[in-house]
Amino acid sequence: MIVMAAQATPEQVQAVLDKVRELGLAAEVSHGTERTVVGVLGHETESVVDALSLLEGVERVVRVLHDYPLASRDFHPQDRVIELANGVRLGGDGVLVMAGPCAVESRAQLQAAAEAVAAQGVRVLRGGAFKPRTSPYTFQGLGEEGLLLLRQVADQLGLAVVTEVLAPEDVELVAAHADMLQIGARNMQNYRLLQACAQVERPVLLKRGMSSTVEEWLQAAEYILAGGNLQVALCERGIRSFEPAVRFSLDITSVPVLKRLTSLPLVVDPSHAAGRHEYVPAIALAAVAAGADGLLVEVHPKPAEALSDGAQSLSPSAFAELMGRARRVAEAVGRELR
Amino acid sequence: MIVMAAQATPEQVQAVLDKVRELGLAAEVSHGTERTVVGVLGHETESVVDALSLLEGVERVVRVLHDYPLASRDFHPQDRVIELANGVRLGGDGVLVMAGPCAVESRAQLQAAAEAVAAQGVRVLRGGAFKPRTSPYTFQGLGEEGLLLLRQVADQLGLAVVTEVLAPEDVELVAAHADMLQIGARNMQNYRLLQACAQVERPVLLKRGMSSTVEEWLQAAEYILAGGNLQVALCERGIRSFEPAVRFSLDITSVPVLKRLTSLPLVVDPSHAAGRHEYVPAIALAAVAAGADGLLVEVHPKPAEALSDGAQSLSPSAFAELMGRARRVAEAVGRELR
Amino acid sequence: MIVMAAQATPEQVQAVLDKVRELGLAAEVSHGTERTVVGVLGHETESVVDALSLLEGVERVVRVLHDYPLASRDFHPQDRVIELANGVRLGGDGVLVMAGPCAVESRAQLQAAAEAVAAQGVRVLRGGAFKPRTSPYTFQGLGEEGLLLLRQVADQLGLAVVTEVLAPEDVELVAAHADMLQIGARNMQNYRLLQACAQVERPVLLKRGMSSTVEEWLQAAEYILAGGNLQVALCERGIRSFEPAVRFSLDITSVPVLKRLTSLPLVVDPSHAAGRHEYVPAIALAAVAAGADGLLVEVHPKPAEALSDGAQSLSPSAFAELMGRARRVAEAVGRELR
Amino acid sequence: MIVMAAQATPEQVQAVLDKVRELGLAAEVSHGTERTVVGVLGHETESVVDALSLLEGVERVVRVLHDYPLASRDFHPQDRVIELANGVRLGGDGVLVMAGPCAVESRAQLQAAAEAVAAQGVRVLRGGAFKPRTSPYTFQGLGEEGLLLLRQVADQLGLAVVTEVLAPEDVELVAAHADMLQIGARNMQNYRLLQACAQVERPVLLKRGMSSTVEEWLQAAEYILAGGNLQVALCERGIRSFEPAVRFSLDITSVPVLKRLTSLPLVVDPSHAAGRHEYVPAIALAAVAAGADGLLVEVHPKPAEALSDGAQSLSPSAFAELMGRARRVAEAVGRELR
Repeated sequence: MIVMAAQATPEQVQAVLDKVRELGLAAEVSHGTERTVVGVLGHETESVVDALSLLEGVERVVRVLHDYPLASRDFHPQDRVIELANGVRLGGDGVLVMAGPCAVESRAQLQAAAEAVAAQGVRVLRGGAFKPRTSPYTFQGLGEEGLLLLRQVADQLGLAVVTEVLAPEDVELVAAHADMLQIGARNMQNYRLLQACAQVERPVLLKRGMSSTVEEWLQAAEYILAGGNLQVALCERGIRSFEPAVRFSLDITSVPVLKRLTSLPLVVDPSHAAGRHEYVPAIALAAVAAGADGLLVEVHPKPAEALSDGAQSLSPSAFAELMGRARRVAEAVGRELR
Repeated sequence: MIVMAAQATPEQVQAVLDKVRELGLAAEVSHGTERTVVGVLGHETESVVDALSLLEGVERVVRVLHDYPLASRDFHPQDRVIELANGVRLGGDGVLVMAGPCAVESRAQLQAAAEAVAAQGVRVLRGGAFKPRTSPYTFQGLGEEGLLLLRQVADQLGLAVVTEVLAPEDVELVAAHADMLQIGARNMQNYRLLQACAQVERPVLLKRGMSSTVEEWLQAAEYILAGGNLQVALCERGIRSFEPAVRFSLDITSVPVLKRLTSLPLVVDPSHAAGRHEYVPAIALAAVAAGADGLLVEVHPKPAEALSDGAQSLSPSAFAELMGRARRVAEAVGRELR
Repeated sequence: MIVMAAQATPEQVQAVLDKVRELGLAAEVSHGTERTVVGVLGHETESVVDALSLLEGVERVVRVLHDYPLASRDFHPQDRVIELANGVRLGGDGVLVMAGPCAVESRAQLQAAAEAVAAQGVRVLRGGAFKPRTSPYTFQGLGEEGLLLLRQVADQLGLAVVTEVLAPEDVELVAAHADMLQIGARNMQNYRLLQACAQVERPVLLKRGMSSTVEEWLQAAEYILAGGNLQVALCERGIRSFEPAVRFSLDITSVPVLKRLTSLPLVVDPSHAAGRHEYVPAIALAAVAAGADGLLVEVHPKPAEALSDGAQSLSPSAFAELMGRARRVAEAVGRELR
Repeated sequence: MIVMAAQATPEQVQAVLDKVRELGLAAEVSHGTERTVVGVLGHETESVVDALSLLEGVERVVRVLHDYPLASRDFHPQDRVIELANGVRLGGDGVLVMAGPCAVESRAQLQAAAEAVAAQGVRVLRGGAFKPRTSPYTFQGLGEEGLLLLRQVADQLGLAVVTEVLAPEDVELVAAHADMLQIGARNMQNYRLLQACAQVERPVLLKRGMSSTVEEWLQAAEYILAGGNLQVALCERGIRSFEPAVRFSLDITSVPVLKRLTSLPLVVDPSHAAGRHEYVPAIALAAVAAGADGLLVEVHPKPAEALSDGAQSLSPSAFAELMGRARRVAEAVGRELR
């Protein structure tokens, strides 16, 4: 819809109509009491919007349609469900917990973390082999060795593995070892990586960019869906705000917003938002109550010795306590914690 | 703590020490491998920080202590509880629901709303008689007439009344009719109003400014506490973010953060954050699960006819459903909904 | 304009049309290929938008018209000019510098600051007598005594006075001594104060709220204009962002945006945005280059001894240097520094 | 520096000291009147901070040192200068303009844009061959063909070429044709790409992430510097804010902040911040006045027909007018526009 300026002349309105037709679209004019509005019929792409907004006498152009057809709930009204290799399901009526250390540091550390989370009934192990780090001088992950450890430890315990992939050239390697590929917040708009993940037969967990809008996030998911991989889940992990007390502010409001706009499963990561382990349980319980389909939680056998994100990792005992509480909250909202 | 620049000279360090002593404070020097740090012993006020940061060779000054002694949990480790006139308690082991229309529009509207919320067990009626509105051309509230209606309707049903006060000159009037004074987000740093509310014997519900940090919010509470009124509760109502899908983003993370920093009761307003009624229940349940001590919910007998904030008001039936779910979530986290 | 959901039925569209007519407005329907859009003719108020957005089948309602008729450039296409008591003009072809201390601390301090700025050709003295402070434990200003000092010192030097007013009950007092009333960022939406300032014959300098949108800012200005005071100038002073390196991020983009939307004079305050004196000159020069009509700069004779905001105040010599550079930049963009 | 909680016991302080020593660092204790502070001597990495913050009785850990040694001005106090292949210099006493179309669309379009900017004295041609686009359904660039066109057109006119590289696997190809590699905002923390750009002998223009802090931006630059490529320039292009009137809010304050923290050259992109061509000149002039070392401006021969970002591109005539004004502002601040 094209809103004309208050002073727009009839000639300017006509020029807009001509341009719309030149672009192969149809138009209708509404003469309001204070503004004339031209409605464009058909799907306006971004360059159409740009072209029209530059014409003389145009105040602004408002887009009516969203730009993520495959991700939208219109396209797939029922909640979508992703089934992982070991049979666990993300989406639908359960709440799936995925837990493990931030980074894979050693077999002993991973084994201890995996056993601790499996003991609480967790069926999906998380853990980073390739780590994106803000500073070049910090631990960057074990790479392929970490992937092998994840696979071995998970197989012993019957767990599925979700782990981050950082670059297009690693997608095949990670897909060979993991059951679900995680795309991190910093890479949400790394389109080459999204396209590479669209080419493999593995579900993808797409984290929200730290200051991406919900619409941009769904457009990023659309890259994977449009590329042919329909198994996409979203992961809210906190947005950048002005508040210095936390690393990120979890956008709990995004849970009902996304449930309205899309039927893709939605996971919440309370660990990165909090930045401190004391805050993790409250945020995790809030996510379950709000309607999230899953939780992604960092658990470390000895948080004080972690090479990465120790401050926000739960100890095994704190995690066990959280699981008990999360189970009760899930039941209170009519769902089952898995 | 004063961090000296890498190139700071011994003379510059000495000048800092001299200044600290001139200000009546003591200092200790640490010579690190890359920076010299001067620790200041004693309470640094803002002007001390400013003065020290201006000295030659100073890179930056870091404050160690917070500036809200009375609001802090250090001062009052146990959770504080506020008892309203009708005996209901905010804070402690229950979760208190305060509900009613955004604005008082008429006796019939208020009566219908009050009966609807009372029927669900609500004991505190909310409703605005003085409304702060972004545009001067919209309904600004009934003023004193609204207060009288609130009092009458509440008394019939045994409810307590919480309502907003907009200006220092209205504090006495509002306190004469209401059981709890609400200070809105736009007025969180209206210091004259805070000081006026410190002078009356009414509990105060202080909403967070739309982009105030948790620390600024506690400093605003400190104005009321330091002025002699110790009955202060906080109300999170969403912060301004870049996300256009909602009016405000509820900062759920502030719940555990505040529980750590302060023992003042904490209420969450899901209605203003959401901006749309469909999103209210999910946010409200999240708040209860995260540990909020209360909810402030907008309920209107006929939302589509509301003069203010209709889009975010719950209908009586939607509110009834929310209450049932909130009660179950409260129980799941070991609390009772009141 | 009302965008219907993809699945909206003809009955739902009809119900929307009926509601629009019931509200006394006219409507037109456009059937697009993917969505039906209902255009509403006439001025939609906020409650109309709310009411329509609640109807079944409505996806969202987009407002076409702004809500600040008197502030808009449509209403007054030519740049507006405000003339102060001593004949200096804000707006139009010059760039007006207003300078002085953050707070009036003493006659000696004010005198020294005023002489320093007057020596650089400045004709408007700024200085706070009533100070809004984040913490209740810091210096709150000299009050009426400060106003008297401002008036006396300004009169000696032929300067006009701009100073902040904090509360409605102080408006008359401040107006009796000052030539221009400043409304601070924290009070931008203190509507009672805006209305009180509309009642006096003094120009008003309205600072932007720290996280107010340009539209909300213009709506706040509209309160003053609609109340009968047409002499309003705006003051950009930085917005809250996620960046910890500065107190506020100056929104330089707001300068051309406002120049398009409104013809009210626009002042920039580089001191509060920067939070550190080293950053003030660069921001001030940027504001002049971008097209600001004025600067509001903090100057203190001895910044290290200031009771308020010392870290961001310029010394007299730094201010003198800035004035020389600002004069050259103003000339480079075809304006004269006053 | 480690700030202990008010209630910390002597045993807890001792445990902190033991841990610091275990980590191979030295410590000093300051007993303040209200808090005990432990100063750690030596370079604290992120994992050290995490480990210490988890100990009992620790309130918080404050980092004193930054984490970008090579990027810092401490390391290289003089302004750094980058010389491109055709002899033009970025950094130092001039202000370098880099201009051209958002995307390379065709030889004719590129030729017209390049001639238009060269006619104004511009020596560096910008243009995208690989385009990161929010939606998968929009034009994604000509790829290698675009690179060849850029090289040919630039060579005819004696221009250097700066163009974006999207993925590690393209770095060699882009470096074979371009004189400077641009890393876009969405890829600022694509560490694999940063590392790949560190391996080639081409200067890198690193754009700021849309919500990255200045510190994170310098840490991203550090990846390239630490990888062996010392020719890095920064490009401010606007940050995400709550303001809907613009696409991004240009953070003009970052100019003086960066000039203090680093000696790397700093470019400003006014086109992406503005999102509308009308706003570009004001922002560009502000950047020059504030001290930027360069401008990156989008110019399109026919903006209304652009396939990408048409709304924010300047026409050749608008660009010519901007160049004249920018030249005068540069001279006003003692620099020469190149």
